[in-house]
Amino acid sequence: MWNRIIESVPNISEGRRPEVVQAIVTAAAGPDRKVIDYSMDPDHNRAVITIVGTPDGIEAGIIGLTGKALELIDLRRHTGAHPRMGAVDVVPFVPVRGVTMDDCVTLSRKVGARLAATFNLPVYLYEQSASRPERENLAAIRKGEFEGLAEKMQRPEWAPDFGPPHPHPSGGAVAVGAREFLIAYNIELATSDLSVARKVARAVRHSSGGLRYVKALGFALPDKGIVQVSMNLTNFKKTPILRVFELVKREAARYGVAVLRSELVGMAPRQAVYDVAAACLQLGALTPDQVLEDRIEEALRADS
Amino acid sequence: MWNRIIESVPNISEGRRPEVVQAIVTAAAGPDRKVIDYSMDPDHNRAVITIVGTPDGIEAGIIGLTGKALELIDLRRHTGAHPRMGAVDVVPFVPVRGVTMDDCVTLSRKVGARLAATFNLPVYLYEQSASRPERENLAAIRKGEFEGLAEKMQRPEWAPDFGPPHPHPSGGAVAVGAREFLIAYNIELATSDLSVARKVARAVRHSSGGLRYVKALGFALPDKGIVQVSMNLTNFKKTPILRVFELVKREAARYGVAVLRSELVGMAPRQAVYDVAAACLQLGALTPDQVLEDRIEEALRADS
Repeated sequence: MWNRIIESVPNISEGRRPEVVQAIVTAAAGPDRKVIDYSMDPDHNRAVITIVGTPDGIEAGIIGLTGKALELIDLRRHTGAHPRMGAVDVVPFVPVRGVTMDDCVTLSRKVGARLAATFNLPVYLYEQSASRPERENLAAIRKGEFEGLAEKMQRPEWAPDFGPPHPHPSGGAVAVGAREFLIAYNIELATSDLSVARKVARAVRHSSGGLRYVKALGFALPDKGIVQVSMNLTNFKKTPILRVFELVKREAARYGVAVLRSELVGMAPRQAVYDVAAACLQLGALTPDQVLEDRIEEALRADS
Repeated sequence: MWNRIIESVPNISEGRRPEVVQAIVTAAAGPDRKVIDYSMDPDHNRAVITIVGTPDGIEAGIIGLTGKALELIDLRRHTGAHPRMGAVDVVPFVPVRGVTMDDCVTLSRKVGARLAATFNLPVYLYEQSASRPERENLAAIRKGEFEGLAEKMQRPEWAPDFGPPHPHPSGGAVAVGAREFLIAYNIELATSDLSVARKVARAVRHSSGGLRYVKALGFALPDKGIVQVSMNLTNFKKTPILRVFELVKREAARYGVAVLRSELVGMAPRQAVYDVAAACLQLGALTPDQVLEDRIEEALRADS
């Protein structure tokens, strides 16, 4: 087991040609990193790849992946429902074990500089790595998308952090940055009334007065005859999952509506799960030394 | 990382001489196993040692530990608050990863036969390994303790499963068997009235009509001015922690008493924690493939 682990979740602008995504995933492979998951969305025409590894392994993987993506994806011929500005659209780095957020910021700068130098690709640093506050939010950087990028980059305030002051002809630009782990979390409500899901989403999300690290939208699930509050939890340490669940439940109850079930989309970090159990049982905290398998893994790591 | 892991938690009848316990812990060491924890209780004059390893590693560790314990502990000169019948009093085997309960039963029989042959020590199989229903319960086997053992063993129904039909002169007898992981779990109540803790304990424990896999007692914690329901959860898969917590909370509420906090004593298996989070968030289930670190460890194990 590696002692220092970073996760990177590059989003690439290809969700329809499996052989292209497969080739890009293969190009990310190598020592000291591992692709543990990837998924394609044809409507969004986008793929999300999850790589874990040591800082050096992740760096090499992102360089390899970007080279192949620039070779195989041409944004001039790309359409899809999801906003995008690059063949490799965004590359977040997330601390997992034995590394700090600062380590991820450092890695994002190093990778950004290398992507610019290697591929003549403009790079924007975002989130925790942003060079100025207006660039923390990915949506602000991506506004105008690939089609508006050449014009946008002529404005001095949108000069890239690394690379040329114009888009890569077929690959656009990429956003690179460090952030906390993002948990995609949905809660289904026992009603077919979409307005309830929308009102609950408005109540719990940060942008309209809710919890600081919650993004939320209400959706209908017509096949099931119910509605869903679909959320991104952008900092589970400061806005824990259980608090979100309980607030959604309470807000839904205002309309006489119960929670049917909730759902983690993709993965959650182990500590986020431990935090739910600790809060639920009034344990105060639950630390890895109280969990059998963590103690075993720690003992075996100490050996090697 | 080992692919097959068993935990053993031998209880030895020495809780006052640290150098003796240390020598016994050292004698358990070797390849393919690891002592991850041990604790001594001077009032009970007893130590509890937690060893994890492969089936072969655990077998060798228990043989080593027992040899040293028989050399250094003489029950003819032992006193303590906790009931005991042997220098090594009880040796449970618990499935952790890649092994079944049946594998642990098989191991317990193998280790029992070797302990008898190597040390001329009588061995009783208990819990899941018991050769007859009356031997499932450790307390029934141990009744009469070391001092009553010679007489008890003369009765045909108490012939040992392995070894001689009389006690080891200084080491008594040992109980060996497979069981589920035991979670020691306490809940503190916001009252100083011991009768409330006792009534709640009676309501939740199996022996007086409560949950099947719960043992419970009410205790006063005079230093804190509160009371505690102290429990052993003997099968967290069938009687999950959250259900126990919620029932205790509800029963305490009958007397107008709130839960202050709860506490895991020692360790809990990771899945027991995941089950709390899943139930609490109405996730249905939470499996390791939904947890980032489990996916990483799985991917790395697949490599090696």
